[in-house]
Amino acid sequence: MKSTLTVSAVQQPCDEDRQTNLDLSIAKIHEAAAANADLVVLPELHLGPYFCQNEDYNNYTLAQSIPGPTTAILSDVARELGIVIVSTIFEKRAPGLYHNTAVVFDKDGSIAGKYRKMHIPDDPGFYEKYYFTPGDLGFKPIETSIGKLGVLVCWDQWYPEAARLMALAGADLLIYPTAIGWDPEDTVEEQQRQLDAWITVQRAHAVANGIPVISCNRIGFEQAPNSTTGTGINFWGNSFIAGPQGEILTSANDSEAKVLSYTLDSARSERVRQIWPFLRDRRIDEYGNLTKRFID
Amino acid sequence: MKSTLTVSAVQQPCDEDRQTNLDLSIAKIHEAAAANADLVVLPELHLGPYFCQNEDYNNYTLAQSIPGPTTAILSDVARELGIVIVSTIFEKRAPGLYHNTAVVFDKDGSIAGKYRKMHIPDDPGFYEKYYFTPGDLGFKPIETSIGKLGVLVCWDQWYPEAARLMALAGADLLIYPTAIGWDPEDTVEEQQRQLDAWITVQRAHAVANGIPVISCNRIGFEQAPNSTTGTGINFWGNSFIAGPQGEILTSANDSEAKVLSYTLDSARSERVRQIWPFLRDRRIDEYGNLTKRFID
Repeated sequence: MKSTLTVSAVQQPCDEDRQTNLDLSIAKIHEAAAANADLVVLPELHLGPYFCQNEDYNNYTLAQSIPGPTTAILSDVARELGIVIVSTIFEKRAPGLYHNTAVVFDKDGSIAGKYRKMHIPDDPGFYEKYYFTPGDLGFKPIETSIGKLGVLVCWDQWYPEAARLMALAGADLLIYPTAIGWDPEDTVEEQQRQLDAWITVQRAHAVANGIPVISCNRIGFEQAPNSTTGTGINFWGNSFIAGPQGEILTSANDSEAKVLSYTLDSARSERVRQIWPFLRDRRIDEYGNLTKRFID
Repeated sequence: MKSTLTVSAVQQPCDEDRQTNLDLSIAKIHEAAAANADLVVLPELHLGPYFCQNEDYNNYTLAQSIPGPTTAILSDVARELGIVIVSTIFEKRAPGLYHNTAVVFDKDGSIAGKYRKMHIPDDPGFYEKYYFTPGDLGFKPIETSIGKLGVLVCWDQWYPEAARLMALAGADLLIYPTAIGWDPEDTVEEQQRQLDAWITVQRAHAVANGIPVISCNRIGFEQAPNSTTGTGINFWGNSFIAGPQGEILTSANDSEAKVLSYTLDSARSERVRQIWPFLRDRRIDEYGNLTKRFID
Protein backbone atom coordinates (compact mmCIF):
# COMPACT_ATOMS: atom_id res chain seq x y z
CA MET A 1 0.00 0.00 0.00
CA LYS A 2 1.16 3.55 -0.70
CA SER A 3 2.24 5.41 2.44
CA THR A 4 -0.82 7.62 2.15
CA LEU A 5 -3.83 6.72 0.10
CA THR A 6 -6.82 8.93 -0.60
CA VAL A 7 -9.91 6.81 -0.98
CA SER A 8 -13.43 7.75 -2.05
CA ALA A 9 -16.82 6.11 -1.84
CA VAL A 10 -19.63 7.21 -4.15
CA GLN A 11 -23.12 7.11 -2.66
CA GLN A 12 -25.73 7.49 -5.37
CA PRO A 13 -29.26 6.51 -6.46
CA CYS A 14 -29.63 3.97 -9.26
CA ASP A 15 -32.62 4.85 -11.41
CA GLU A 16 -34.38 3.19 -14.31
CA ASP A 17 -32.27 4.87 -16.96
CA ARG A 18 -28.95 3.05 -17.11
CA GLN A 19 -27.15 5.79 -19.03
CA THR A 20 -28.18 8.35 -16.40
CA ASN A 21 -26.77 6.12 -13.67
CA LEU A 22 -23.50 5.54 -15.47
CA ASP A 23 -23.19 9.25 -16.24
CA LEU A 24 -23.75 10.02 -12.55
CA SER A 25 -21.17 7.43 -11.50
CA ILE A 26 -18.64 8.93 -13.91
CA ALA A 27 -19.39 12.48 -12.72
CA LYS A 28 -18.78 11.31 -9.15
CA ILE A 29 -15.53 9.62 -10.18
CA HIS A 30 -14.43 12.96 -11.63
CA GLU A 31 -15.37 14.61 -8.32
CA ALA A 32 -13.28 12.04 -6.42
CA ALA A 33 -10.36 12.58 -8.78
CA ALA A 34 -10.62 16.31 -8.22
CA ALA A 35 -10.17 15.55 -4.50
CA ASN A 36 -6.96 13.71 -5.46
CA ALA A 37 -8.40 10.29 -4.77
CA ASP A 38 -6.26 7.27 -5.65
CA LEU A 39 -9.24 4.95 -5.43
CA VAL A 40 -12.97 5.33 -5.91
CA VAL A 41 -15.63 2.75 -5.07
CA LEU A 42 -19.09 2.65 -6.65
CA PRO A 43 -22.14 0.98 -5.07
CA GLU A 44 -23.04 -2.59 -5.99
CA LEU A 45 -24.65 -2.97 -9.43
CA HIS A 46 -24.78 0.81 -9.87
CA LEU A 47 -25.94 0.62 -13.49
CA GLY A 48 -29.59 0.27 -12.63
CA PRO A 49 -32.33 -0.51 -10.14
CA TYR A 50 -31.81 -3.50 -7.89
CA PHE A 51 -33.46 -6.02 -10.23
CA CYS A 52 -33.42 -8.91 -7.73
CA GLN A 53 -36.66 -7.78 -6.09
CA ASN A 54 -38.34 -10.54 -8.10
CA GLU A 55 -37.38 -13.52 -10.24
CA ASP A 56 -37.78 -12.61 -13.91
CA TYR A 57 -35.77 -14.24 -16.66
CA ASN A 58 -36.06 -11.09 -18.74
CA ASN A 59 -33.57 -9.53 -16.35
CA TYR A 60 -30.82 -11.77 -17.68
CA THR A 61 -30.65 -9.40 -20.65
CA LEU A 62 -29.11 -6.87 -18.27
CA ALA A 63 -25.99 -9.01 -17.89
CA GLN A 64 -22.85 -8.31 -19.87
CA SER A 65 -19.46 -9.86 -20.37
CA ILE A 66 -16.26 -8.79 -18.60
CA PRO A 67 -14.49 -7.24 -20.41
CA GLY A 68 -17.51 -5.74 -22.13
CA PRO A 69 -19.23 -2.46 -22.92
CA THR A 70 -19.27 -1.03 -19.39
CA THR A 71 -15.74 -2.08 -18.54
CA ALA A 72 -14.56 -0.42 -21.75
CA ILE A 73 -16.07 2.88 -20.62
CA LEU A 74 -14.76 2.66 -17.05
CA SER A 75 -11.31 1.63 -18.29
CA ASP A 76 -11.18 4.86 -20.24
CA VAL A 77 -12.26 6.89 -17.20
CA ALA A 78 -9.66 5.21 -14.97
CA ARG A 79 -6.88 5.87 -17.48
CA GLU A 80 -7.99 9.42 -18.21
CA LEU A 81 -8.11 10.37 -14.51
CA GLY A 82 -5.33 8.07 -13.29
CA ILE A 83 -7.58 6.60 -10.61
CA VAL A 84 -8.34 3.09 -9.43
CA ILE A 85 -12.06 2.27 -9.80
CA VAL A 86 -14.13 -0.48 -8.19
CA SER A 87 -17.37 -1.18 -10.08
CA THR A 88 -19.83 -4.05 -9.76
CA ILE A 89 -21.37 -5.57 -12.85
CA PHE A 90 -23.99 -8.27 -13.54
CA GLU A 91 -21.59 -10.58 -15.34
CA LYS A 92 -22.62 -12.88 -18.16
CA ARG A 93 -19.98 -15.58 -18.08
CA ALA A 94 -21.71 -17.97 -20.47
CA PRO A 95 -25.27 -18.48 -21.68
CA GLY A 96 -27.26 -19.26 -18.53
CA LEU A 97 -24.30 -18.62 -16.19
CA TYR A 98 -24.15 -15.29 -14.39
CA HIS A 99 -22.30 -13.70 -11.47
CA ASN A 100 -22.42 -10.57 -9.32
CA THR A 101 -18.89 -9.38 -10.03
CA ALA A 102 -16.72 -6.55 -8.79
CA VAL A 103 -14.18 -5.29 -11.33
CA VAL A 104 -11.11 -3.31 -10.34
CA PHE A 105 -9.57 -0.95 -12.91
CA ASP A 106 -6.03 0.21 -12.30
CA LYS A 107 -4.82 3.74 -12.98
CA ASP A 108 -3.64 2.76 -16.45
CA GLY A 109 -7.12 1.60 -17.38
CA SER A 110 -6.29 -2.09 -17.26
CA ILE A 111 -8.53 -4.53 -15.43
CA ALA A 112 -6.45 -5.36 -12.36
CA GLY A 113 -8.74 -8.18 -11.37
CA LYS A 114 -12.25 -9.21 -10.53
CA TYR A 115 -14.04 -10.72 -7.57
CA ARG A 116 -17.20 -12.77 -7.96
CA LYS A 117 -19.52 -12.39 -4.97
CA MET A 118 -19.06 -15.51 -2.88
CA HIS A 119 -21.94 -15.36 -0.39
CA ILE A 120 -25.27 -15.07 -2.19
CA PRO A 121 -28.35 -13.98 -0.23
CA ASP A 122 -31.90 -14.98 -0.86
CA ASP A 123 -34.81 -13.60 1.07
CA PRO A 124 -38.06 -11.87 0.13
CA GLY A 125 -37.14 -8.95 -2.14
CA PHE A 126 -33.52 -10.08 -2.52
CA TYR A 127 -33.76 -13.10 -4.85
CA GLU A 128 -30.07 -13.26 -5.66
CA LYS A 129 -29.76 -17.03 -5.68
CA TYR A 130 -31.93 -16.98 -8.80
CA TYR A 131 -29.62 -14.64 -10.68
CA PHE A 132 -26.10 -15.15 -9.39
CA THR A 133 -23.99 -18.27 -9.33
CA PRO A 134 -21.83 -18.19 -6.19
CA GLY A 135 -18.33 -16.93 -6.95
CA ASP A 136 -15.55 -19.37 -7.76
CA LEU A 137 -12.55 -17.06 -7.58
CA GLY A 138 -12.10 -17.37 -3.82
CA PHE A 139 -11.27 -14.64 -1.33
CA LYS A 140 -8.24 -13.13 -3.05
CA PRO A 141 -7.19 -9.49 -2.79
CA ILE A 142 -6.73 -7.74 -6.10
CA GLU A 143 -3.23 -6.40 -6.70
CA THR A 144 -3.14 -2.83 -7.95
CA SER A 145 -0.60 -0.05 -8.28
CA ILE A 146 -1.82 1.39 -4.95
CA GLY A 147 -2.02 -1.80 -2.89
CA LYS A 148 -3.89 -5.05 -2.41
CA LEU A 149 -7.62 -4.48 -2.38
CA GLY A 150 -9.81 -6.88 -0.41
CA VAL A 151 -12.94 -6.39 -2.49
CA LEU A 152 -16.04 -8.14 -1.21
CA VAL A 153 -19.69 -7.50 -2.15
CA CYS A 154 -22.75 -6.77 0.01
CA TRP A 155 -23.93 -10.04 1.68
CA ASP A 156 -20.23 -10.92 2.16
CA GLN A 157 -20.13 -8.08 4.67
CA TRP A 158 -21.90 -10.23 7.28
CA TYR A 159 -19.18 -12.90 7.18
CA PRO A 160 -16.09 -12.43 9.36
CA GLU A 161 -14.55 -15.38 7.52
CA ALA A 162 -14.45 -13.41 4.26
CA ALA A 163 -12.81 -10.39 5.84
CA ARG A 164 -10.29 -12.56 7.66
CA LEU A 165 -9.32 -14.51 4.54
CA MET A 166 -8.75 -11.26 2.67
CA ALA A 167 -6.59 -9.96 5.52
CA LEU A 168 -4.62 -13.20 5.72
CA ALA A 169 -3.98 -12.93 1.99
CA GLY A 170 -2.47 -9.49 2.56
CA ALA A 171 -5.33 -7.10 1.84
CA ASP A 172 -4.45 -3.51 2.71
CA LEU A 173 -8.11 -2.45 2.70
CA LEU A 174 -11.51 -4.07 2.79
CA ILE A 175 -14.00 -2.72 0.26
CA TYR A 176 -17.74 -3.42 0.27
CA PRO A 177 -19.86 -2.20 -2.65
CA THR A 178 -23.38 -2.88 -1.41
CA ALA A 179 -27.10 -2.47 -2.07
CA ILE A 180 -28.96 -2.74 1.19
CA GLY A 181 -32.01 -1.01 2.51
CA TRP A 182 -35.06 -0.99 4.68
CA ASP A 183 -38.32 -2.78 4.19
CA PRO A 184 -40.78 0.13 4.63
CA GLU A 185 -43.13 -2.27 6.41
CA ASP A 186 -40.67 -2.84 9.26
CA THR A 187 -40.93 -0.72 12.39
CA VAL A 188 -38.61 2.23 12.85
CA GLU A 189 -36.94 0.35 15.71
CA GLU A 190 -36.28 -2.71 13.55
CA GLN A 191 -34.94 -0.48 10.76
CA GLN A 192 -32.56 1.20 13.19
CA ARG A 193 -31.35 -2.15 14.55
CA GLN A 194 -30.68 -3.40 11.03
CA LEU A 195 -28.71 -0.31 10.05
CA ASP A 196 -26.70 -0.39 13.29
CA ALA A 197 -25.96 -4.09 12.82
CA TRP A 198 -24.75 -3.44 9.28
CA ILE A 199 -22.41 -0.65 10.36
CA THR A 200 -21.24 -2.57 13.42
CA VAL A 201 -20.34 -5.79 11.68
CA GLN A 202 -18.27 -3.99 9.04
CA ARG A 203 -16.50 -1.79 11.59
CA ALA A 204 -15.69 -5.02 13.43
CA HIS A 205 -13.95 -6.41 10.33
CA ALA A 206 -11.66 -3.38 10.52
CA VAL A 207 -11.06 -4.01 14.22
CA ALA A 208 -10.46 -7.76 13.98
CA ASN A 209 -8.05 -7.37 11.07
CA GLY A 210 -6.45 -4.00 11.76
CA ILE A 211 -7.20 -2.57 8.32
CA PRO A 212 -9.51 0.17 7.00
CA VAL A 213 -12.94 -0.57 5.56
CA ILE A 214 -14.74 1.27 2.78
CA SER A 215 -18.47 0.58 2.55
CA CYS A 216 -20.43 2.06 -0.31
CA ASN A 217 -24.21 1.82 -0.58
CA ARG A 218 -26.93 3.17 -2.87
CA ILE A 219 -29.78 5.47 -1.84
CA GLY A 220 -33.36 5.96 -2.93
CA PHE A 221 -36.63 4.05 -2.80
CA GLU A 222 -37.08 1.40 -5.47
CA GLN A 223 -40.63 0.15 -5.98
CA ALA A 224 -41.19 -3.60 -6.01
CA PRO A 225 -42.08 -4.86 -9.52
CA ASN A 226 -45.22 -6.47 -8.14
CA SER A 227 -47.06 -6.63 -4.86
CA THR A 228 -46.16 -10.24 -4.04
CA THR A 229 -42.78 -9.28 -2.65
CA GLY A 230 -43.73 -6.22 -0.62
CA THR A 231 -43.75 -2.55 -1.44
CA GLY A 232 -40.09 -2.09 -2.32
CA ILE A 233 -36.75 -1.26 -0.76
CA ASN A 234 -35.67 2.02 0.76
CA PHE A 235 -31.90 1.86 0.24
CA TRP A 236 -30.33 3.25 3.38
CA GLY A 237 -27.11 4.89 2.20
CA ASN A 238 -24.93 5.46 5.27
CA SER A 239 -21.80 4.73 3.29
CA PHE A 240 -18.68 5.12 5.39
CA ILE A 241 -14.92 4.85 5.62
CA ALA A 242 -13.53 3.37 8.85
CA GLY A 243 -9.96 3.19 10.10
CA PRO A 244 -8.04 0.14 11.37
CA GLN A 245 -9.60 0.36 14.85
CA GLY A 246 -13.06 0.49 13.30
CA GLU A 247 -13.33 4.21 13.95
CA ILE A 248 -15.61 6.06 11.53
CA LEU A 249 -13.48 8.50 9.55
CA THR A 250 -16.23 9.87 7.34
CA SER A 251 -19.81 8.87 6.62
CA ALA A 252 -22.93 9.86 4.72
CA ASN A 253 -26.57 10.01 5.77
CA ASP A 254 -29.41 7.91 4.36
CA SER A 255 -30.43 10.15 1.47
CA GLU A 256 -27.58 12.27 0.07
CA ALA A 257 -25.78 11.59 -3.20
CA LYS A 258 -22.22 12.17 -2.09
CA VAL A 259 -18.55 11.43 -2.60
CA LEU A 260 -16.90 10.52 0.70
CA SER A 261 -13.12 10.95 0.72
CA TYR A 262 -10.42 10.32 3.29
CA THR A 263 -6.64 10.09 3.24
CA LEU A 264 -5.46 6.89 4.92
CA ASP A 265 -2.01 6.44 6.48
CA SER A 266 -0.63 2.94 5.98
CA ALA A 267 1.83 3.40 8.87
CA ARG A 268 -1.15 3.75 11.18
CA SER A 269 -2.64 0.42 10.06
CA GLU A 270 0.64 -1.29 10.84
CA ARG A 271 0.92 0.47 14.19
CA VAL A 272 -2.58 -0.65 15.17
CA ARG A 273 -1.68 -4.24 14.36
CA GLN A 274 1.38 -3.87 16.58
CA ILE A 275 -0.68 -2.49 19.47
CA TRP A 276 -3.24 -5.27 19.11
CA PRO A 277 -1.38 -8.19 17.51
CA PHE A 278 -4.43 -10.34 16.91
CA LEU A 279 -2.91 -12.21 13.97
CA ARG A 280 -0.15 -13.49 16.24
CA ASP A 281 -2.47 -15.33 18.60
CA ARG A 282 -5.03 -16.99 16.34
CA ARG A 283 -5.57 -20.60 17.47
CA ILE A 284 -5.21 -22.08 14.01
CA ASP A 285 -4.76 -25.50 15.61
CA GLU A 286 -8.38 -25.31 16.78
CA TYR A 287 -10.08 -23.57 13.83
CA GLY A 288 -10.60 -26.65 11.66
CA ASN A 289 -14.32 -26.85 12.40
CA LEU A 290 -14.90 -23.49 10.69
CA THR A 291 -15.24 -25.52 7.50
CA LYS A 292 -18.26 -27.32 8.92
CA ARG A 293 -21.82 -26.21 8.28
CA PHE A 294 -22.72 -26.88 11.90
CA ILE A 295 -21.08 -28.91 14.64
CA ASP A 296 -23.73 -31.48 15.52
CA MET B 1 -32.30 -22.37 25.97
CA LYS B 2 -35.25 -21.55 28.20
CA SER B 3 -37.94 -19.55 26.39
CA THR B 4 -37.04 -16.52 28.49
CA LEU B 5 -33.81 -16.17 30.36
CA THR B 6 -32.89 -13.42 32.78
CA VAL B 7 -29.16 -12.80 32.65
CA SER B 8 -26.95 -10.59 34.78
CA ALA B 9 -23.46 -9.20 34.49
CA VAL B 10 -21.58 -8.02 37.57
CA GLN B 11 -19.30 -5.04 37.09
CA GLN B 12 -17.03 -4.61 40.08
CA PRO B 13 -13.58 -3.46 41.22
CA CYS B 14 -11.04 -6.10 42.24
CA ASP B 15 -8.94 -4.83 45.12
CA GLU B 16 -5.95 -6.18 46.99
CA ASP B 17 -7.97 -8.03 49.59
CA ARG B 18 -9.20 -11.23 48.00
CA GLN B 19 -11.85 -11.92 50.62
CA THR B 20 -13.33 -8.45 50.06
CA ASN B 21 -13.55 -9.11 46.34
CA LEU B 22 -15.16 -12.50 46.78
CA ASP B 23 -17.61 -11.08 49.31
CA LEU B 24 -18.51 -8.32 46.85
CA SER B 25 -18.97 -10.85 44.04
CA ILE B 26 -21.26 -12.93 46.25
CA ALA B 27 -23.24 -9.87 47.33
CA LYS B 28 -23.74 -8.99 43.66
CA ILE B 29 -24.82 -12.57 42.89
CA HIS B 30 -27.44 -12.20 45.61
CA GLU B 31 -28.55 -8.93 44.01
CA ALA B 32 -28.86 -10.67 40.62
CA ALA B 33 -30.83 -13.52 42.18
CA ALA B 34 -33.15 -11.02 43.79
CA ALA B 35 -33.82 -9.72 40.25
CA ASN B 36 -34.78 -13.31 39.32
CA ALA B 37 -31.67 -13.89 37.24
CA ASP B 38 -31.11 -17.39 35.88
CA LEU B 39 -27.49 -16.63 35.11
CA VAL B 40 -24.88 -14.27 36.54
CA VAL B 41 -21.46 -13.53 35.05
CA LEU B 42 -18.50 -12.19 37.06
CA PRO B 43 -15.55 -10.31 35.55
CA GLU B 44 -12.39 -12.18 34.58
CA LEU B 45 -10.21 -13.19 37.54
CA HIS B 46 -12.44 -11.28 39.95
CA LEU B 47 -10.67 -12.58 43.07
CA GLY B 48 -7.94 -9.98 42.97
CA PRO B 49 -6.00 -7.30 41.15
CA TYR B 50 -4.95 -8.08 37.60
CA PHE B 51 -1.60 -9.63 38.51
CA CYS B 52 -0.34 -9.92 34.92
CA GLN B 53 0.96 -6.33 34.90
CA ASN B 54 4.39 -7.84 35.45
CA GLU B 55 6.08 -11.23 35.38
CA ASP B 56 6.61 -12.45 38.95
CA TYR B 57 6.78 -16.11 39.84
CA ASN B 58 5.44 -15.31 43.31
CA ASN B 59 2.07 -14.76 41.63
CA TYR B 60 1.80 -18.47 40.92
CA THR B 61 0.82 -18.88 44.58
CA LEU B 62 -2.47 -17.20 43.64
CA ALA B 63 -3.49 -20.16 41.50
CA GLN B 64 -5.80 -22.87 42.80
CA SER B 65 -7.17 -26.17 41.63
CA ILE B 66 -10.59 -26.67 40.04
CA PRO B 67 -12.48 -27.93 41.96
CA GLY B 68 -10.84 -26.08 44.82
CA PRO B 69 -11.50 -23.62 47.60
CA THR B 70 -13.17 -20.91 45.51
CA THR B 71 -15.28 -23.29 43.45
CA ALA B 72 -16.51 -24.87 46.72
CA ILE B 73 -17.77 -21.50 47.91
CA LEU B 74 -19.37 -20.55 44.59
CA SER B 75 -20.97 -23.98 44.26
CA ASP B 76 -22.70 -23.35 47.56
CA VAL B 77 -23.89 -19.91 46.41
CA ALA B 78 -25.22 -21.31 43.12
CA ARG B 79 -27.12 -24.09 44.90
CA GLU B 80 -28.42 -21.81 47.64
CA LEU B 81 -29.76 -19.24 45.18
CA GLY B 82 -30.62 -21.63 42.33
CA ILE B 83 -28.62 -19.56 39.86
CA VAL B 84 -26.05 -20.36 37.17
CA ILE B 85 -22.73 -18.60 37.86
CA VAL B 86 -19.80 -17.93 35.53
CA SER B 87 -16.55 -17.24 37.41
CA THR B 88 -12.98 -17.05 36.16
CA ILE B 89 -10.18 -18.56 38.21
CA PHE B 90 -6.39 -18.73 37.91
CA GLU B 91 -6.26 -22.50 37.60
CA LYS B 92 -3.39 -24.62 38.91
CA ARG B 93 -3.63 -27.73 36.80
CA ALA B 94 -0.29 -29.22 37.84
CA PRO B 95 2.93 -27.86 39.35
CA GLY B 96 4.18 -25.34 36.79
CA LEU B 97 1.07 -25.62 34.59
CA TYR B 98 -1.57 -22.91 34.87
CA HIS B 99 -4.60 -21.67 32.93
CA ASN B 100 -6.99 -18.74 32.89
CA THR B 101 -10.18 -20.73 33.32
CA ALA B 102 -13.87 -19.92 33.34
CA VAL B 103 -15.96 -22.21 35.53
CA VAL B 104 -19.72 -22.57 35.10
CA PHE B 105 -21.78 -23.64 38.12
CA ASP B 106 -25.27 -24.96 37.45
CA LYS B 107 -28.27 -24.16 39.63
CA ASP B 108 -27.74 -27.32 41.67
CA GLY B 109 -24.22 -26.21 42.58
CA SER B 110 -22.49 -28.71 40.32
CA ILE B 111 -19.69 -27.63 38.03
CA ALA B 112 -21.37 -27.77 34.62
CA GLY B 113 -18.08 -27.31 32.81
CA LYS B 114 -15.04 -25.17 32.35
CA TYR B 115 -13.41 -23.26 29.53
CA ARG B 116 -9.70 -22.57 29.46
CA LYS B 117 -8.92 -19.28 27.74
CA MET B 118 -7.72 -20.16 24.25
CA HIS B 119 -6.24 -16.89 22.93
CA ILE B 120 -3.59 -15.57 25.30
CA PRO B 121 -2.47 -11.94 24.96
CA ASP B 122 0.92 -10.54 25.73
CA ASP B 123 1.75 -6.89 25.55
CA PRO B 124 3.22 -4.35 27.96
CA GLY B 125 1.17 -4.56 31.16
CA PHE B 126 -0.68 -7.70 30.08
CA TYR B 127 1.95 -10.44 30.39
CA GLU B 128 -0.48 -13.34 30.16
CA LYS B 129 1.72 -15.62 28.09
CA TYR B 130 3.99 -15.87 31.14
CA TYR B 131 1.22 -17.07 33.42
CA PHE B 132 -1.33 -18.91 31.30
CA THR B 133 -0.88 -21.96 29.12
CA PRO B 134 -3.23 -21.63 26.14
CA GLY B 135 -6.43 -23.59 26.66
CA ASP B 136 -6.73 -27.14 25.39
CA LEU B 137 -10.45 -27.71 25.81
CA GLY B 138 -11.40 -26.15 22.47
CA PHE B 139 -14.33 -23.86 21.74
CA LYS B 140 -17.14 -25.89 23.26
CA PRO B 141 -20.29 -24.44 24.78
CA ILE B 142 -21.03 -25.56 28.31
CA GLU B 143 -24.32 -27.39 28.74
CA THR B 144 -26.39 -26.15 31.65
CA SER B 145 -29.97 -26.45 32.82
CA ILE B 146 -30.73 -23.09 31.17
CA GLY B 147 -28.99 -23.59 27.83
CA LYS B 148 -25.65 -23.92 26.11
CA LEU B 149 -23.28 -21.19 27.22
CA GLY B 150 -20.58 -20.05 24.81
CA VAL B 151 -18.13 -18.88 27.45
CA LEU B 152 -15.01 -17.16 26.17
CA VAL B 153 -12.55 -14.97 28.08
CA CYS B 154 -11.25 -11.44 27.39
CA TRP B 155 -8.66 -11.59 24.54
CA ASP B 156 -10.91 -14.20 22.86
CA GLN B 157 -13.37 -11.37 22.30
CA TRP B 158 -11.28 -10.00 19.43
CA TYR B 159 -11.52 -13.27 17.47
CA PRO B 160 -14.58 -13.84 15.28
CA GLU B 161 -13.40 -17.43 14.85
CA ALA B 162 -14.00 -18.17 18.55
CA ALA B 163 -17.51 -16.71 18.50
CA ARG B 164 -18.37 -18.56 15.30
CA LEU B 165 -17.13 -21.92 16.59
CA MET B 166 -19.23 -21.50 19.73
CA ALA B 167 -22.28 -20.65 17.62
CA LEU B 168 -21.69 -23.58 15.28
CA ALA B 169 -21.52 -25.84 18.32
CA GLY B 170 -24.94 -24.63 19.36
CA ALA B 171 -24.22 -21.86 21.88
CA ASP B 172 -27.37 -19.98 22.88
CA LEU B 173 -25.36 -17.07 24.27
CA LEU B 174 -21.84 -15.70 24.09
CA ILE B 175 -20.33 -14.73 27.43
CA TYR B 176 -17.14 -12.70 27.86
CA PRO B 177 -15.72 -12.21 31.36
CA THR B 178 -12.97 -9.68 30.79
CA ALA B 179 -10.36 -7.42 32.35
CA ILE B 180 -9.54 -4.62 29.96
CA GLY B 181 -8.70 -1.00 30.51
CA TRP B 182 -6.97 2.12 29.42
CA ASP B 183 -3.32 2.98 29.59
CA PRO B 184 -3.50 6.39 31.32
CA GLU B 185 -0.64 7.53 29.11
CA ASP B 186 -2.71 7.18 25.94
CA THR B 187 -4.57 10.17 24.59
CA VAL B 188 -8.28 10.54 25.28
CA GLU B 189 -8.93 9.97 21.56
CA GLU B 190 -6.97 6.70 21.55
CA GLN B 191 -8.75 5.58 24.71
CA GLN B 192 -12.12 6.27 23.10
CA ARG B 193 -11.16 4.37 19.93
CA GLN B 194 -10.07 1.37 21.98
CA LEU B 195 -13.27 1.29 24.00
CA ASP B 196 -15.41 1.69 20.86
CA ALA B 197 -13.47 -1.07 19.10
CA TRP B 198 -14.00 -3.39 22.08
CA ILE B 199 -17.74 -2.78 22.17
CA THR B 200 -18.04 -2.95 18.38
CA VAL B 201 -16.24 -6.24 17.87
CA GLN B 202 -18.33 -7.99 20.53
CA ARG B 203 -21.61 -6.56 19.24
CA ALA B 204 -20.54 -7.87 15.83
CA HIS B 205 -20.22 -11.39 17.22
CA ALA B 206 -23.89 -11.12 18.19
CA VAL B 207 -24.76 -9.86 14.69
CA ALA B 208 -22.74 -12.42 12.75
CA ASN B 209 -24.10 -15.32 14.79
CA GLY B 210 -27.59 -14.13 15.69
CA ILE B 211 -27.20 -14.70 19.43
CA PRO B 212 -26.97 -12.42 22.47
CA VAL B 213 -23.66 -11.38 24.01
CA ILE B 214 -22.90 -10.71 27.68
CA SER B 215 -19.68 -8.82 28.31
CA CYS B 216 -18.55 -8.29 31.88
CA ASN B 217 -15.56 -6.13 32.82
CA ARG B 218 -13.94 -4.86 35.99
CA ILE B 219 -13.56 -1.22 37.02
CA GLY B 220 -10.99 0.76 38.97
CA PHE B 221 -7.40 1.89 38.56
CA GLU B 222 -4.77 -0.69 39.42
CA GLN B 223 -1.26 0.61 39.95
CA ALA B 224 1.57 -1.10 38.09
CA PRO B 225 3.80 -3.09 40.47
CA ASN B 226 6.84 -1.21 39.17
CA SER B 227 7.56 1.62 36.80
CA THR B 228 9.05 -0.48 34.01
CA THR B 229 5.64 -1.40 32.64
CA GLY B 230 3.92 1.96 32.85
CA THR B 231 1.77 3.57 35.50
CA GLY B 232 -1.02 1.01 35.64
CA ILE B 233 -4.36 0.15 34.08
CA ASN B 234 -7.60 2.07 34.36
CA PHE B 235 -10.13 -0.72 33.85
CA TRP B 236 -12.88 0.70 31.71
CA GLY B 237 -16.03 -1.09 32.84
CA ASN B 238 -18.68 -0.52 30.14
CA SER B 239 -20.07 -4.01 30.67
CA PHE B 240 -23.08 -4.68 28.47
CA ILE B 241 -25.70 -7.13 27.31
CA ALA B 242 -26.48 -7.10 23.57
CA GLY B 243 -29.28 -8.82 21.66
CA PRO B 244 -28.99 -11.05 18.58
CA GLN B 245 -28.78 -8.07 16.20
CA GLY B 246 -25.98 -6.60 18.30
CA GLU B 247 -28.33 -4.05 19.82
CA ILE B 248 -27.31 -2.85 23.28
CA LEU B 249 -30.00 -3.93 25.74
CA THR B 250 -28.35 -2.59 28.89
CA SER B 251 -24.92 -1.24 29.72
CA ALA B 252 -22.84 0.29 32.50
CA ASN B 253 -20.52 3.27 32.54
CA ASP B 254 -16.76 3.21 33.19
CA SER B 255 -16.82 3.54 36.99
CA GLU B 256 -19.96 2.13 38.62
CA ALA B 257 -20.11 -1.16 40.52
CA LYS B 258 -23.35 -2.53 39.12
CA VAL B 259 -25.44 -5.56 38.34
CA LEU B 260 -26.80 -5.36 34.79
CA SER B 261 -29.85 -7.55 34.17
CA TYR B 262 -32.01 -8.26 31.14
CA THR B 263 -34.62 -10.85 30.23
CA LEU B 264 -33.81 -12.46 26.88
CA ASP B 265 -36.38 -14.08 24.60
CA SER B 266 -35.04 -17.15 22.81
CA ALA B 267 -37.77 -16.94 20.17
CA ARG B 268 -36.34 -13.60 19.13
CA SER B 269 -32.85 -15.06 18.59
CA GLU B 270 -34.33 -17.70 16.31
CA ARG B 271 -36.41 -15.12 14.45
CA VAL B 272 -33.35 -12.95 13.83
CA ARG B 273 -31.52 -15.94 12.38
CA GLN B 274 -34.49 -16.52 10.07
CA ILE B 275 -34.52 -12.89 8.92
CA TRP B 276 -30.77 -12.97 8.29
CA PRO B 277 -29.90 -16.62 7.62
CA PHE B 278 -26.14 -16.16 7.64
CA LEU B 279 -25.40 -19.73 8.69
CA ARG B 280 -27.13 -21.00 5.53
CA ASP B 281 -24.76 -19.24 3.15
CA ARG B 282 -21.31 -19.73 4.69
CA ARG B 283 -18.83 -20.75 1.94
CA ILE B 284 -17.40 -23.65 3.90
CA ASP B 285 -15.88 -24.96 0.67
CA GLU B 286 -13.62 -21.90 0.63
CA TYR B 287 -12.82 -21.42 4.34
CA GLY B 288 -9.98 -23.94 4.57
CA ASN B 289 -7.29 -21.27 4.68
CA LEU B 290 -8.65 -19.97 8.00
CA THR B 291 -6.38 -22.56 9.60
CA LYS B 292 -3.32 -20.85 8.12
CA ARG B 293 -1.29 -18.30 10.06
CA PHE B 294 -1.00 -16.15 6.93
CA ILE B 295 -1.50 -16.86 3.25
CA ASP B 296 1.88 -16.10 1.74
